[in-house]
Amino acid sequence: MKKKNLVSLIQAMASRAKSASEALSLLSAEKKNDALNRMASEILKHTREILKANTRDVEAARRAGLPESLIGRLTLSESKIRGISASLRQIARLPDPVGRLISSTKRPNGLVIKKVGVPIGAILIIYESRPNVTADCMALCLKSGNSVILKGGSEALHSNAALFRFLSRAAYAAGVPRGAFEFVATTDRKAADILLKLKDEIDLVIPRGGEGLIRRVAERSKIPVIKHFKGVCHVFVDKRADLRKAEDIALNAKVQNPGVCNAMETLLVHEGAAKTFLPRVCAVLKRKGVELRGDDKTRALVPGVKKATEADWAAEYLDLILAVRVVKNLDEAVRHIQRYGSRHSDAIVTEDKKAAGYFTDAVDSACVFVNCSTRFNDGGEFGMGAEMGISTDKLHARGPMGLEELTSYKYVVLGHGQVRT
Amino acid sequence: MKKKNLVSLIQAMASRAKSASEALSLLSAEKKNDALNRMASEILKHTREILKANTRDVEAARRAGLPESLIGRLTLSESKIRGISASLRQIARLPDPVGRLISSTKRPNGLVIKKVGVPIGAILIIYESRPNVTADCMALCLKSGNSVILKGGSEALHSNAALFRFLSRAAYAAGVPRGAFEFVATTDRKAADILLKLKDEIDLVIPRGGEGLIRRVAERSKIPVIKHFKGVCHVFVDKRADLRKAEDIALNAKVQNPGVCNAMETLLVHEGAAKTFLPRVCAVLKRKGVELRGDDKTRALVPGVKKATEADWAAEYLDLILAVRVVKNLDEAVRHIQRYGSRHSDAIVTEDKKAAGYFTDAVDSACVFVNCSTRFNDGGEFGMGAEMGISTDKLHARGPMGLEELTSYKYVVLGHGQVRT
Repeated sequence: MKKKNLVSLIQAMASRAKSASEALSLLSAEKKNDALNRMASEILKHTREILKANTRDVEAARRAGLPESLIGRLTLSESKIRGISASLRQIARLPDPVGRLISSTKRPNGLVIKKVGVPIGAILIIYESRPNVTADCMALCLKSGNSVILKGGSEALHSNAALFRFLSRAAYAAGVPRGAFEFVATTDRKAADILLKLKDEIDLVIPRGGEGLIRRVAERSKIPVIKHFKGVCHVFVDKRADLRKAEDIALNAKVQNPGVCNAMETLLVHEGAAKTFLPRVCAVLKRKGVELRGDDKTRALVPGVKKATEADWAAEYLDLILAVRVVKNLDEAVRHIQRYGSRHSDAIVTEDKKAAGYFTDAVDSACVFVNCSTRFNDGGEFGMGAEMGISTDKLHARGPMGLEELTSYKYVVLGHGQVRT
Repeated sequence: MKKKNLVSLIQAMASRAKSASEALSLLSAEKKNDALNRMASEILKHTREILKANTRDVEAARRAGLPESLIGRLTLSESKIRGISASLRQIARLPDPVGRLISSTKRPNGLVIKKVGVPIGAILIIYESRPNVTADCMALCLKSGNSVILKGGSEALHSNAALFRFLSRAAYAAGVPRGAFEFVATTDRKAADILLKLKDEIDLVIPRGGEGLIRRVAERSKIPVIKHFKGVCHVFVDKRADLRKAEDIALNAKVQNPGVCNAMETLLVHEGAAKTFLPRVCAVLKRKGVELRGDDKTRALVPGVKKATEADWAAEYLDLILAVRVVKNLDEAVRHIQRYGSRHSDAIVTEDKKAAGYFTDAVDSACVFVNCSTRFNDGGEFGMGAEMGISTDKLHARGPMGLEELTSYKYVVLGHGQVRT
């Protein structure tokens, strides 16, 4: 497509999304929930067509020699579609974040000041490979009264397009205003660049995917971005840790699902606990297939551990690899985390309340855990019901982003004739 | 100064601010409050020196022929310095937003999830003319645990520098970590451009001032910006308004302080109320020296009103000028506000609860008022104690920005060995 045509097509798309967002902000919870339930039914009904479209993507990915991990994320199945459908119904059951009363105060002059949840507007989501993100984002944005522009990865184009077609058809049939959902059907990379300049039409960009994607979006965007960045997560085992808990937590944080952002990448152990703890936990980790890379002190205590390099301390492996370091004290652990971590999810295991308090104060991460696994940094585990992802930014939303985090607020001030003196 | 020297000076300044922000985040409320009280004393003690520096700025402004309104904002006096000092003491008395418990939930698995206020980091404030902003920003950032880089207007350079010198000296003597306050002492315009690129050192930019300044900052910044934009504020007098209240509110919103962002710029009147209300209110407004610019219907009802142009509907006069329009109904009023307004402060005067409800739902402004003056959009009036300004953005903070709005949050999750299954 010629650049000029692409620009005007995308501009029109963004304008539709912007207009729709006004009508969407006034849509009742009943209408939104009805639409979500119809969307859930529609994709079940069309499972065969969605799987057919998905097969095209999967076959193309195989031909292109894409890695198996990516093909796994890309591949849909009947049960995955049932899962997506169930998740749409679950979002329908969650409370409406629009119009929720956040706070209410009465001032001495009699004014009642209410802080009320409102949608943000039009949201652009730029994402990679997983087709379920298409459905999740459409549902979360609809429920939170935002219109959404979806720009998925080229490798999932047919799957995303099929899901989008059935989902939006069902929503529009249920009375959702046209323009609530827009889908960028081209794989032209210029499309994203054009979108990222439309600051009058689009209110927020959420990039979800690998580090490269997120950096590219943050670099080019003229629109505010909430980044969902990488997780270089730590577990620190303190001198006064209950070593049984420490072992359970380290194991869970590393091996329960190593490919996700809240999995542990570095284990820090207080030198007062290292001698007892490290040989034990490393044996268990090795049995689970974890490759260990340690500092000299770790290697002195545990034979057969590879030497960790500077790059290991900053690595997000997303794999069965773990960096291990012995630290002199709590303070050295905190400094290590501040230096190498990504401010995502970090844990301390200790029975010492003072140490726990210092750790949770000093470690500047979205979620700081005491005596539990980093894997709990998750909207579902936090009771949010559904999540857009995990923000690693400090502005607007930090940590799991659920429906409330997809809203802004307004103040509604009720008086009976008050004026300012 | 050579560009290269300026770059490295500013880079060093931003690095100091970033480092200081870590220590600041751990500073106790007692230390911060003690510092604020000492800062309050210090500027009282050095009133003469501050006024002397201010005189230099005011004389230069007079020589340069700057407008009287700007010179008024620029000029300090003994009583203004007492006011600044009192405001520092007031900020000391406000609750510490750092470490405040925002929410706490217990999950079925026994995890306790606490959402806790934390500082944002290093904040850059770019502002114009009013020297009191220097003190306000230093105090608000200190209390909220953020370091601050101040880039004031060149016309207030000596006043700002004097205030900065005494305030930071007192704070550092009280144990505030060095680098908590940084002051850009050059009037070189390139300085701001350099700062706006330092996204690894600076976490947030808040521009305060005229529209041109804010656009320039938003355009060039690589760092997230919270804009404090203009206020094109409306009062809509409904068919079912109590016309006595309507008159008081319109008068207050226009004339009590016409030079501020929450003053009314356009009066919208339902055609069912126009015949009775307009001649009355316009007579009073005219007596107060307000110049009126109206649509044809207004001009038919009130003789001697100038014809409003398209530009009038979008104007932020900040002066004793008012645009007046008669609208057919509530819906036309809402559409006018959505089209021409700046989403800052808009009011409806009505005794009809349904009309009020529709207005507060449909008008997408930071503050929507029912039966009271738009002038109440103010941190002090909202009970925040002190404010950084009024955000016209929808992300992070909207409306008055007080101490809480200058913080982010983290989750602190307390367990007793829980792992994820």
